[in-house]
Amino acid sequence: MIITLLTDFGLRDNFVGVVKGVILGINPQARIVDISHGITPGDILQAAFLLESSYRYFPYGTIHLIIVDPGVGSGRKAIIVKTKNYYFVGPDNGVLAPSLEAEEKVIKIISITNQRFYLKPTSSTFHGRDIFAPVVAYLSCGRNISEFGVSQKDYRHLEFPRPVIGKKTLLGRIIYIDRFGNLVTNIPQDVFRRFVGKASFHIHLKNKIISQISKSYLDADKNKPLAIFGSSGNLEISISCGNAKNYFAARRGVKVWVRLV
Amino acid sequence: MIITLLTDFGLRDNFVGVVKGVILGINPQARIVDISHGITPGDILQAAFLLESSYRYFPYGTIHLIIVDPGVGSGRKAIIVKTKNYYFVGPDNGVLAPSLEAEEKVIKIISITNQRFYLKPTSSTFHGRDIFAPVVAYLSCGRNISEFGVSQKDYRHLEFPRPVIGKKTLLGRIIYIDRFGNLVTNIPQDVFRRFVGKASFHIHLKNKIISQISKSYLDADKNKPLAIFGSSGNLEISISCGNAKNYFAARRGVKVWVRLV
Amino acid sequence: MIITLLTDFGLRDNFVGVVKGVILGINPQARIVDISHGITPGDILQAAFLLESSYRYFPYGTIHLIIVDPGVGSGRKAIIVKTKNYYFVGPDNGVLAPSLEAEEKVIKIISITNQRFYLKPTSSTFHGRDIFAPVVAYLSCGRNISEFGVSQKDYRHLEFPRPVIGKKTLLGRIIYIDRFGNLVTNIPQDVFRRFVGKASFHIHLKNKIISQISKSYLDADKNKPLAIFGSSGNLEISISCGNAKNYFAARRGVKVWVRLV
Repeated sequence: MIITLLTDFGLRDNFVGVVKGVILGINPQARIVDISHGITPGDILQAAFLLESSYRYFPYGTIHLIIVDPGVGSGRKAIIVKTKNYYFVGPDNGVLAPSLEAEEKVIKIISITNQRFYLKPTSSTFHGRDIFAPVVAYLSCGRNISEFGVSQKDYRHLEFPRPVIGKKTLLGRIIYIDRFGNLVTNIPQDVFRRFVGKASFHIHLKNKIISQISKSYLDADKNKPLAIFGSSGNLEISISCGNAKNYFAARRGVKVWVRLV
Repeated sequence: MIITLLTDFGLRDNFVGVVKGVILGINPQARIVDISHGITPGDILQAAFLLESSYRYFPYGTIHLIIVDPGVGSGRKAIIVKTKNYYFVGPDNGVLAPSLEAEEKVIKIISITNQRFYLKPTSSTFHGRDIFAPVVAYLSCGRNISEFGVSQKDYRHLEFPRPVIGKKTLLGRIIYIDRFGNLVTNIPQDVFRRFVGKASFHIHLKNKIISQISKSYLDADKNKPLAIFGSSGNLEISISCGNAKNYFAARRGVKVWVRLV
Repeated sequence: MIITLLTDFGLRDNFVGVVKGVILGINPQARIVDISHGITPGDILQAAFLLESSYRYFPYGTIHLIIVDPGVGSGRKAIIVKTKNYYFVGPDNGVLAPSLEAEEKVIKIISITNQRFYLKPTSSTFHGRDIFAPVVAYLSCGRNISEFGVSQKDYRHLEFPRPVIGKKTLLGRIIYIDRFGNLVTNIPQDVFRRFVGKASFHIHLKNKIISQISKSYLDADKNKPLAIFGSSGNLEISISCGNAKNYFAARRGVKVWVRLV
């Protein structure tokens, strides 16, 4: 049984290792895979985006544990969500929302309340170690999710920026920037295709205009901007052989316009 | 059998991967878990602290391999320490000391001298690959620790800063700063509680005073300092929704005073 | 069966995790070991060097997957190379060359063309996930490499800087700098020994001269330069208890001269 980890713990401290130690102490057979521990501390939106573009590449039955939890130790709930194909476990702060609203069908939501599964003593600062790790470990051993707490009807949603479709313009935003400096927008390929149809278009980012979709990062002159549907399935702005983040001095939230011409 | 790794190798070079390759070549069943590879190069104190706050979260029988080894290739010894519940393997430079002086009972100490287990040729710069990796791999296969070398009576101790308990003041120091900027002191919760009893207290760090213990990182006004017992069990100074390292421009070694008032 | 990963994906994004998810979905028994994901984006030379100094420390039969692939989605080929002891899989851009030219005997080279093994839809930007991951996973399940495509005769070579041996001088270059700041040259120990014989020598780097080979990093006065044969087997320039990269303000490509005196 695979357990994935997506956290803002970083790799310099011992947080990730200790979580793994607790899991393996309970289920020595667990396969643990790191999705990322490099989420900017407390950045729920970033984690939500990465989870949504990762979870479906794991085999059915995988338990996805997400710990980006600025509210740890306060009143926020922790939940297990069983969907048709996966389990998602994490704080109920919206980080799971985009994944649950993608193609996964939610079957049951459990608020984690059964302290029987917690490590004792239970800290108020490191629920990853004391609550989430044992919960996913026991879950991976085959425990029924109802044992971990009480059912709840909904989960916390997230204000996730969606593209705005106008008559002649489609307004998107940069929602993620990867290590290569590629600027990932919130415009999915199908939304773009439906909007553009067979018309010509201009993609505007800052003072640059791109008027075609490339098939590869080399499919433009060196050091020139290009638009491409990246691995997340969304429209990306890149620089051929370069770094678009630096080229555009761009950050998350910056607007990208698609205009019919 | 679990083998944990705690090193200052970083993740950019191939050191960690090569160590794992050697281990798996000898014991394909070994489960290897990274505690951290982000120790500041040669920082024995930092590694000692992380080990001491990690080792007990792994199942009994785990082999903890620590490679923070500025003296590699010089005369320093390498040791295996068998305690009641674990094995600790590393250079005999003090890095194991705080863990061995915690609740673990030392049963046997072996100085690694049996070159039969070494990779050949044996480099003088990378004992992690050539000595430690094969040793922990064979150990995880069930070899008796006496096969690896000769018994020795003691291990090298470490000048680990302890809090100084006075009549009206308790003097601690920052010994670790995590990625969230939390300032971890060397004051364990029980030492603090015994010192303070039912009295009121002021915690002084630089020119700030904190007069209560919080239960969560949100248990103070936004961007205000708070004191909390963190996941290591020690007193930490944090900023609600912020970064105490930046707020205080603090580093390891800075004094934290607790005064009865 | 072990699959190693050596990429320029970094650890902040979800690329590495997703590749592992795809592999484990096909072969749940695969053992995946990270060599490094910290290659400078697109730096084929750096990856080639790390691969060559890593691959032989893994058990025979290991599948080494290298994804440093600035030409992804363009016309570059992807190949599987079966050698006497290992499999190497990656873009045919020269990154495998130094390893294949070391002591490994190349047995067969396959150009990956059989789309039956690809993830569908197949992106043009993330062949790691959509092509390489399923290919190495099926390979680790025991598929014959001929199933993945068509045989080709050669692989792309790499202009890898070799030391230049003169009559009284041996000219090398720094080809890698590790996290400790050690300056790894392209001069292998045997080349150095053959050149020097029993003569005295001076090693020149910038305006410093080193006239002996040390056996450990402590085998020189503190903060003084030393020369040593490092873990890659090549001549390295280091600073005792210090960082040679900073000391020399050195970078890759800088010349190191060995002169007989």
